[in-house]
Amino acid sequence: MKPVVVTGTPRPAAALVARLAALGVATTHEAMGRIGLMKPYMRPIWPGAQVAGSAVTVLAQPGDNWMIHVAVEQCQPGDILVVGVTADNTDGMFGDLLATSLMSRGVVGLVIDAGVRDVKSLTEMKFPVWPRAISAKGTVKATLGSVNVPVVCAGALVHPGDVVVADDDGVLVVPRKDAEAAAIAGEARVANEDAKRNALASGVLGLDLYKMREPLAKAGLTYVPWKGED
Amino acid sequence: MKPVVVTGTPRPAAALVARLAALGVATTHEAMGRIGLMKPYMRPIWPGAQVAGSAVTVLAQPGDNWMIHVAVEQCQPGDILVVGVTADNTDGMFGDLLATSLMSRGVVGLVIDAGVRDVKSLTEMKFPVWPRAISAKGTVKATLGSVNVPVVCAGALVHPGDVVVADDDGVLVVPRKDAEAAAIAGEARVANEDAKRNALASGVLGLDLYKMREPLAKAGLTYVPWKGED
Amino acid sequence: MKPVVVTGTPRPAAALVARLAALGVATTHEAMGRIGLMKPYMRPIWPGAQVAGSAVTVLAQPGDNWMIHVAVEQCQPGDILVVGVTADNTDGMFGDLLATSLMSRGVVGLVIDAGVRDVKSLTEMKFPVWPRAISAKGTVKATLGSVNVPVVCAGALVHPGDVVVADDDGVLVVPRKDAEAAAIAGEARVANEDAKRNALASGVLGLDLYKMREPLAKAGLTYVPWKGED
Amino acid sequence: MKPVVVTGTPRPAAALVARLAALGVATTHEAMGRIGLMKPYMRPIWPGAQVAGSAVTVLAQPGDNWMIHVAVEQCQPGDILVVGVTADNTDGMFGDLLATSLMSRGVVGLVIDAGVRDVKSLTEMKFPVWPRAISAKGTVKATLGSVNVPVVCAGALVHPGDVVVADDDGVLVVPRKDAEAAAIAGEARVANEDAKRNALASGVLGLDLYKMREPLAKAGLTYVPWKGED
Amino acid sequence: MKPVVVTGTPRPAAALVARLAALGVATTHEAMGRIGLMKPYMRPIWPGAQVAGSAVTVLAQPGDNWMIHVAVEQCQPGDILVVGVTADNTDGMFGDLLATSLMSRGVVGLVIDAGVRDVKSLTEMKFPVWPRAISAKGTVKATLGSVNVPVVCAGALVHPGDVVVADDDGVLVVPRKDAEAAAIAGEARVANEDAKRNALASGVLGLDLYKMREPLAKAGLTYVPWKGED
Amino acid sequence: MKPVVVTGTPRPAAALVARLAALGVATTHEAMGRIGLMKPYMRPIWPGAQVAGSAVTVLAQPGDNWMIHVAVEQCQPGDILVVGVTADNTDGMFGDLLATSLMSRGVVGLVIDAGVRDVKSLTEMKFPVWPRAISAKGTVKATLGSVNVPVVCAGALVHPGDVVVADDDGVLVVPRKDAEAAAIAGEARVANEDAKRNALASGVLGLDLYKMREPLAKAGLTYVPWKGED
Repeated sequence: MKPVVVTGTPRPAAALVARLAALGVATTHEAMGRIGLMKPYMRPIWPGAQVAGSAVTVLAQPGDNWMIHVAVEQCQPGDILVVGVTADNTDGMFGDLLATSLMSRGVVGLVIDAGVRDVKSLTEMKFPVWPRAISAKGTVKATLGSVNVPVVCAGALVHPGDVVVADDDGVLVVPRKDAEAAAIAGEARVANEDAKRNALASGVLGLDLYKMREPLAKAGLTYVPWKGED
Repeated sequence: MKPVVVTGTPRPAAALVARLAALGVATTHEAMGRIGLMKPYMRPIWPGAQVAGSAVTVLAQPGDNWMIHVAVEQCQPGDILVVGVTADNTDGMFGDLLATSLMSRGVVGLVIDAGVRDVKSLTEMKFPVWPRAISAKGTVKATLGSVNVPVVCAGALVHPGDVVVADDDGVLVVPRKDAEAAAIAGEARVANEDAKRNALASGVLGLDLYKMREPLAKAGLTYVPWKGED
Repeated sequence: MKPVVVTGTPRPAAALVARLAALGVATTHEAMGRIGLMKPYMRPIWPGAQVAGSAVTVLAQPGDNWMIHVAVEQCQPGDILVVGVTADNTDGMFGDLLATSLMSRGVVGLVIDAGVRDVKSLTEMKFPVWPRAISAKGTVKATLGSVNVPVVCAGALVHPGDVVVADDDGVLVVPRKDAEAAAIAGEARVANEDAKRNALASGVLGLDLYKMREPLAKAGLTYVPWKGED
Repeated sequence: MKPVVVTGTPRPAAALVARLAALGVATTHEAMGRIGLMKPYMRPIWPGAQVAGSAVTVLAQPGDNWMIHVAVEQCQPGDILVVGVTADNTDGMFGDLLATSLMSRGVVGLVIDAGVRDVKSLTEMKFPVWPRAISAKGTVKATLGSVNVPVVCAGALVHPGDVVVADDDGVLVVPRKDAEAAAIAGEARVANEDAKRNALASGVLGLDLYKMREPLAKAGLTYVPWKGED
Repeated sequence: MKPVVVTGTPRPAAALVARLAALGVATTHEAMGRIGLMKPYMRPIWPGAQVAGSAVTVLAQPGDNWMIHVAVEQCQPGDILVVGVTADNTDGMFGDLLATSLMSRGVVGLVIDAGVRDVKSLTEMKFPVWPRAISAKGTVKATLGSVNVPVVCAGALVHPGDVVVADDDGVLVVPRKDAEAAAIAGEARVANEDAKRNALASGVLGLDLYKMREPLAKAGLTYVPWKGED
Repeated sequence: MKPVVVTGTPRPAAALVARLAALGVATTHEAMGRIGLMKPYMRPIWPGAQVAGSAVTVLAQPGDNWMIHVAVEQCQPGDILVVGVTADNTDGMFGDLLATSLMSRGVVGLVIDAGVRDVKSLTEMKFPVWPRAISAKGTVKATLGSVNVPVVCAGALVHPGDVVVADDDGVLVVPRKDAEAAAIAGEARVANEDAKRNALASGVLGLDLYKMREPLAKAGLTYVPWKGED
């Protein structure tokens, strides 16, 4: 229960992280069995970014960004900073100065269950952030939290060194030990999807492609003609 | 109360649908007497689309997109798919594969009181969607619902064959039997608005243009000079 | 408690308003001691606008935009219109005709604790609006309110003649009497930030730049090595 | 689209309504196939009431209770008043005077997708109300709506003469034509539940009572011993 | 913009405050012209309390209750403590120890746009509180705010010495200068309501009592017989 | 990532759990350093219960209560059932039959990040439940989840065997290894609070009792006399 900074946390291989970044959130989430997703209120501040990184985690107090400053020192190239807060809060705990610092260390993005500010600058800097809110509300530096402990962020549990994938569909946490399996399963889905996409584009129905007609009938679905007014 | 797919539902004339698409949501809504609007949490995933279509309706269970696959087969060119759900839900029930299928059938868009995913792809495909949320959360195919029955979607009642108009201002339902009258009333408003716009742009006040001064005075509005500090 | 329109309200100097517009919301908010910010649900309808104006205030009833028409007459070049509502409401109380009228009078923007419509047109017209919602829901003109009285808008108190600053980070109210001091303090912050930004970009840590290591240690922060699995 | 009051609407048999009142919301909802439920934000203002009535429906404008006054005249003993609103609103559209009027006509309760006030008096009068909010905010009488047309209330479609069941679990709409079947199916469930309750109270597991072990195993559920720290 | 405690603020006459307490929130709100109401998320932690007091105001930082301790000293018998916060927050800023302190000074209640805790004890002590949330989340004492400055609390502006009325319907702010007029107007409403209540209870319709039939017809309301299925 | 039921999980000593139950949520939360609290939307369905138990955890799919049936078998006297869900959901996943089953096994309560139904019966049975919502919405039994794995419930991480404390202030998670320390620290606070309560009740100010005057002055708080109108 004491505030700590855990150092020397392990990281997944960069090549593995890159594979998950390429797959994106929706595909990896399906490949993992539909778990690990953050709540959908986490939205990118600008569209189009698709990243993955090794999580450096922060547990912060609402309205207090002291521990984010502490966490910067623990970051390495390829990391993604993940900030959970002990109570719901939308204050702007992060802005362009902190982003400048993270970019100088090679951090690929920020996921924060609170607010950010300076979004115009952050967009120009092309630093991707997935916050729960945008707010200019400034914060204090008064109470300690922890760095690189397990944190709950937007409803998902994140350990330091987990792979966090983020894109326009949201944010996903892949436990470090599951990352390899998730990449393999996700890549299999992608290979599979292209054939499906071509079939569907040519007019084949999903009902036939996925062989749904029999289970639907078995479940009791019936077709009836329209009896209302024309 | 049994799960059904109603076939052979009627559709409004394509030319009539096109007239409502051209009017857009705000004008048609006023022309109809300010009813039929879905709740404002329904937002487009990309800006600028303005469409209208004949509704194919789906009643789905939360977190279950089985009936959307069933509904695709009932769609024709010029239709718009409208999905209501039996309980509040933000799961990503629709993605780029289903969009590929709908586009191959000439469907003009999707309105869904739940989540969508693959929004980057959907944006690139220029397939317009008005969801309540964006979420990568995958869904199951386990429980039946119905297709082409009356559904409540985002607070509005939709029958199959109603005209659904959608643009950056939201989503509107025009009952099939009222569509002609709505188009006529809306077009009259538009004709009327250009003159007003020119007057207002030249500095004429709405107070004078709309003859509000007398009713305001009658209702008791008074003008008083500032008495605070300068 | 009677509905009134207050005329002849004072305004801050245009040059002072311009200085606050240049500073933007986040910097001015910090400079003021972190007060005066509207709630973060107030979002711009299009990105990139950064304005400040002298507030003309409106107290309106939910779903009734009569008083906005009244307020237009009280507006001068450089003003910003601020609309508070007596109960939470998302109806589209403002559209492109009212915007045309405001632009013809030189008004720089609208802040409204309710909905707006015609957002596509407003975007094309480059008229900036910070609403709580986007909704095509039309409104009546039935009940009086007041113009240029103190109003609460999105949680912030606004007096006529206060400087209202708005950008992608939100909306801030600067009391007229505090505007000069806020500008001076804000400009000092900006001068100060450039040096910090350069230091951080070159790899200097905030921990060192802001001399945080000692207070952190004093507060009890400890560093411990990772003891989990590699 | 014109404002109307529909008179002479049909009602279900009182004895049938009483059977659904006795079953309550949860049981009837299951018996109907899990449809027709209003959203869970509809909560009783005092606990313990369990009623059913024949719906008299009102479509009202937000912040305007004129049509509720109109609807009172259409009410008969055994009716329940159901108020839908054209936009989200929490204003207190109903208080103890209207309740006095409804009680004098034998109305069994009120379901309203808006606010109520005078809740202390309503509780003392034992008049049950299921609103979306409690608010003292007064309303105007300025804009027409309709009475006894189909309305959407809290996400559910209600026709005049539908049976509306309400208790501590929420509010359910049973279409008039389905009421008999719902009562029969619900009563069968109740008969069935007593035996289950006794078995479960004596320690029989639901896993065995509902024969779930085989389908769970088939679906892939596995049991593993704890491997963490003791 | 500096943190201050304003001392020696004026208070309304106790007899006047008592008259408003007797009227309650809904009646006084109507008597005032339907302004001054806090948002309906402010709910009592136990039912039945109906109080009014002279406001002692606090502007606090989220998650920081230091200024509440400061405010206690400024309280006198008959006061009500009103706490606004600079950003949305639900932390439990107030518990039974602070209530003990306020009760020993004769304070009649607490209105707080944040959370409270120890609600079981507060209920047993019969100390009434109208918070936005109940939460055990503890707070720090790190950042200054102000006491007896104008504050926005739950959307309403409160000055020190305003009369704050609170009951099961919500919380209302009556400016000190308007309190006498509000009491007179409210008492006239009450006298008037008893006759109305008796008439309505005896079966007289509001349509007749309030002479609504003519304005309804004039506005265009029409009565049509049911044409659906019986 | 496979669905599992973990058996033979450890439990804390019953006497230790009882000590935390006696302390309650607010005191234990402070004693732990203000972490581990679930979000304040978790509210008891009836007031006055104050319990603690050893957590049996369930990870369920939204709208699917199959795994709750599985979890019952893993429960022992003194346990508390904690249900997390993979996406936000308010469906009524738990009712009086499941409660009967849990009570027959000596379970002290249920904490569920979803809805419950049969709340009238659950209240009569005196079975305490802390849900996020009350809803009659029925659920399916279609998709597996897990039992006795770490779950996130209402924003808090829960491991099987953690002590979960719940009362009118909310729900708190105490990691099993920290329970002894939390009990000791909490009991020290309680001993300390009685003296404080007596002092405050006798009129001693918190400003003096907690020696706040000096730090307040040092932080810059100033006292100024009222300069407004009397």
